[in-house]
Amino acid sequence: MKPIQDIIKNKPIVGWLIFGATVIVVFLIGLLASSIIERRNESDLLQIVKPIADWEPRNEVWGENYPREYESYLGTLDTNFRSKHGGSASIDYLEQDPKLVILWAGYAFSKDYSQGRGHYYAINDIRNTLRTVQPQPATCWSCKSTDVPRMMNKVGVAEFYKDKWLNMGAEILNPIGCQDCHDPKTMNLRITRPALIEAFSRQGKDISKATHQEMRSLVCAQCHVEYYFKGEGKYLTFPWDKGFSADSMEAYYDNYEFTDWVHGLSKTPMLKAQHPDYEMYKTGVHADRNVSCADCHMPYRSEGGVKFTDHKIQSPLNNIANSCQVCHRESEEKLRNNVYERQDKVEQLKQLAETALVKAHFEAKVAWDNKATDDEMKPILRLIRHSQWRWDWVAAANAVGFHSPVEASRILGTSIQKAEEARVLLARVLAKYGINQPVVIPDISTKDKAQKVININIQDLKKQKSEFINTTAIKWDKGKSDNYKTTKK
Amino acid sequence: MKPIQDIIKNKPIVGWLIFGATVIVVFLIGLLASSIIERRNESDLLQIVKPIADWEPRNEVWGENYPREYESYLGTLDTNFRSKHGGSASIDYLEQDPKLVILWAGYAFSKDYSQGRGHYYAINDIRNTLRTVQPQPATCWSCKSTDVPRMMNKVGVAEFYKDKWLNMGAEILNPIGCQDCHDPKTMNLRITRPALIEAFSRQGKDISKATHQEMRSLVCAQCHVEYYFKGEGKYLTFPWDKGFSADSMEAYYDNYEFTDWVHGLSKTPMLKAQHPDYEMYKTGVHADRNVSCADCHMPYRSEGGVKFTDHKIQSPLNNIANSCQVCHRESEEKLRNNVYERQDKVEQLKQLAETALVKAHFEAKVAWDNKATDDEMKPILRLIRHSQWRWDWVAAANAVGFHSPVEASRILGTSIQKAEEARVLLARVLAKYGINQPVVIPDISTKDKAQKVININIQDLKKQKSEFINTTAIKWDKGKSDNYKTTKK
Repeated sequence: MKPIQDIIKNKPIVGWLIFGATVIVVFLIGLLASSIIERRNESDLLQIVKPIADWEPRNEVWGENYPREYESYLGTLDTNFRSKHGGSASIDYLEQDPKLVILWAGYAFSKDYSQGRGHYYAINDIRNTLRTVQPQPATCWSCKSTDVPRMMNKVGVAEFYKDKWLNMGAEILNPIGCQDCHDPKTMNLRITRPALIEAFSRQGKDISKATHQEMRSLVCAQCHVEYYFKGEGKYLTFPWDKGFSADSMEAYYDNYEFTDWVHGLSKTPMLKAQHPDYEMYKTGVHADRNVSCADCHMPYRSEGGVKFTDHKIQSPLNNIANSCQVCHRESEEKLRNNVYERQDKVEQLKQLAETALVKAHFEAKVAWDNKATDDEMKPILRLIRHSQWRWDWVAAANAVGFHSPVEASRILGTSIQKAEEARVLLARVLAKYGINQPVVIPDISTKDKAQKVININIQDLKKQKSEFINTTAIKWDKGKSDNYKTTKK
Repeated sequence: MKPIQDIIKNKPIVGWLIFGATVIVVFLIGLLASSIIERRNESDLLQIVKPIADWEPRNEVWGENYPREYESYLGTLDTNFRSKHGGSASIDYLEQDPKLVILWAGYAFSKDYSQGRGHYYAINDIRNTLRTVQPQPATCWSCKSTDVPRMMNKVGVAEFYKDKWLNMGAEILNPIGCQDCHDPKTMNLRITRPALIEAFSRQGKDISKATHQEMRSLVCAQCHVEYYFKGEGKYLTFPWDKGFSADSMEAYYDNYEFTDWVHGLSKTPMLKAQHPDYEMYKTGVHADRNVSCADCHMPYRSEGGVKFTDHKIQSPLNNIANSCQVCHRESEEKLRNNVYERQDKVEQLKQLAETALVKAHFEAKVAWDNKATDDEMKPILRLIRHSQWRWDWVAAANAVGFHSPVEASRILGTSIQKAEEARVLLARVLAKYGINQPVVIPDISTKDKAQKVININIQDLKKQKSEFINTTAIKWDKGKSDNYKTTKK
């Protein structure tokens, strides 16, 4: 091989060609560098449009600085997606499964229980539900609005909870949004709800030490958890002191002799599970592998060279390519079916638990009606309380057990056992009082029929609700512009 | 930079250095090539030591041609490994969980049920168990030995099943091994047991069309499945015509009115699950991802340049690095704990099902003792039959549900529901006959106590077994050398 100098000396044209090629390559590298710098600038520019005040509740104000996040957040307005077992549309759960009316007899959930339509609709949904016809504490607002941290900061946390839901309504106007999870100065994730910080603290943990990846679940765990209203002050509290599992929280509540309500038929001192999504997720394989809530429900996107978090919080089944498929190299159809299979199995056990519980409540009512004694009923009611709590721990959580299918099945298995064991004891008590035939269960095949069985006057409730929407709620909305003086600096 | 010619011209020593380096590199490349060729030869040589006769049952004869596979197969002699929920040592299941004695009252399993110690011990284990004190059909040998295909070929399949276990014993001397799964000419995987071929055929499937990866599970599915002995001829049959699941096989057996035995206490027409490992695996995520039995239980190894399948068939938990970690990039400890967590949850539901079933059997006995009628008992016995079948579908399979934890939990949930519902009905029947207190369950806290409750004379059984081992079994072994004339060509 000849040295290159020799070649150039003999054929000058080759030299010029090499020179030309070098010029072109350098030009292209320059273009690439320029593009990279431009993208970085674009990304930097996002942070500096205008500062956001402390406790600013208006999502649209934050949106001026973070248009991509805000626009994707507005995507939660879209409620068209439906998976096999739910979706973002507002399913009437009582219509879909009228057994629920019986399970919650004597409690507001038996009147109305529809699926929440997503964060954007949080305030509309809580205003519209018939559950808020009866007086509720202000604690019920806790997870519905970015105005909650603002008001807690203004009036104090305990004072906020102590107030009435109706009193606080005029201040709570912006739905769940930016400031619930973000620091307006740094945009870092932050916890704005004291209940989570306090629950960590009681367990000897400092939530401010959480990693960024942990925070991508913990901001969700401010609300997507089991909680109760503690004491006269209705102080929002997470029952986590003995642990996260259904069994541990049951022990916590028992230890406290806490009761959400007394059942209308069986007189059982009941527990109502809220939505222990975080607790169930923590028992599952995704949490074990350090996958956060946001990884599946708010996956990263890229637009115009900027990588950002998709704030259209939704079922990953509506976004499999960006959520599941980041890790799972399987077809969308296979992954969707993998989810449905697990949910179908959990749903089957859930139905068995409900059926047994409905029978137990009616049988217990007949036992009381026939003068069964407190002593005879006590072990039965304890079984019913625990069975329904465990059923509800799975049923009230999102995703029909998919966040932890084996744990959900385990808990439902114990729920079934307890409900049916209650029925064994009930059969003996009933026989003692001369009733040795199966208790006839009334027709509860529709929501209407089931609600009539437990004497709910739904027309009256609807009338009251309509008055509220057309007077009070309108007045609240009209005062919106006056509310945010505290947010200005 | 100066052209290389110039350098060499100026300093001849550099030229010699380059020449020397080249010589060394070429020599090393030659060594590498030689090593590769040698390894390939070594691999080729393995195939041609000496031909193996059709139906050759002696594993040691195959082992002369395939020393690596044979040596690893001999690894199954090692029974030291124990996982949290089992292992290859011979656990006495009745000692570990005396409830089993009651569940199988009236059936040979209540006398003796220890964990099989692995393929190498198959013949010893079936000879030693007290279950074979009572007369058994030759069908019981079907999965124990490489002599089975040989004898089926010699006497015919139906004739083999029709014979007595004792009659056939002198011919069945080589434990599960090479020819059960391999063609002696090509070493391809092959199905030697007709029951699997017939089950496929009845479903309209041709097992000879199975892929190699499917065969790496199907050779196991010759035996690790649910089966029953059909009709007078005790013809080995898989109940798969309606599907693989516990529900489908239950429907198959009901349709047939098939009964393994009548329960000694409750008089229930019972089903005994065998070891539906393949069926449960098929409902799990590993099957869904096309992972075969062999991928986890017989992973590939490499030795002396030869890649081969590890024939030490064992729990993947004893070999996590070569099994789980091929796909799962997690620590051994995490993966082991992931398995244990799932097994613990399944085990909890399994125990709940057992406890309910034990009570149901005793309560049903009291009902019969108090003159309950067939009509009253019929729906109860049907629930007990189905409940125990479903429990056994999980309990009899290996791995405490790990092959499909959600499906195992679902089936156990339905098992619990059915057993407890039977107890609700029993409470009413018992009350009718004047018994309205809980039925007292005898002390069954040890295997001995439980066996006494159901009148098993274990000493007598042990004496008979000892006589058999010291006379008949010794005679069988002595005749070994005469048996293989048919295998010579």
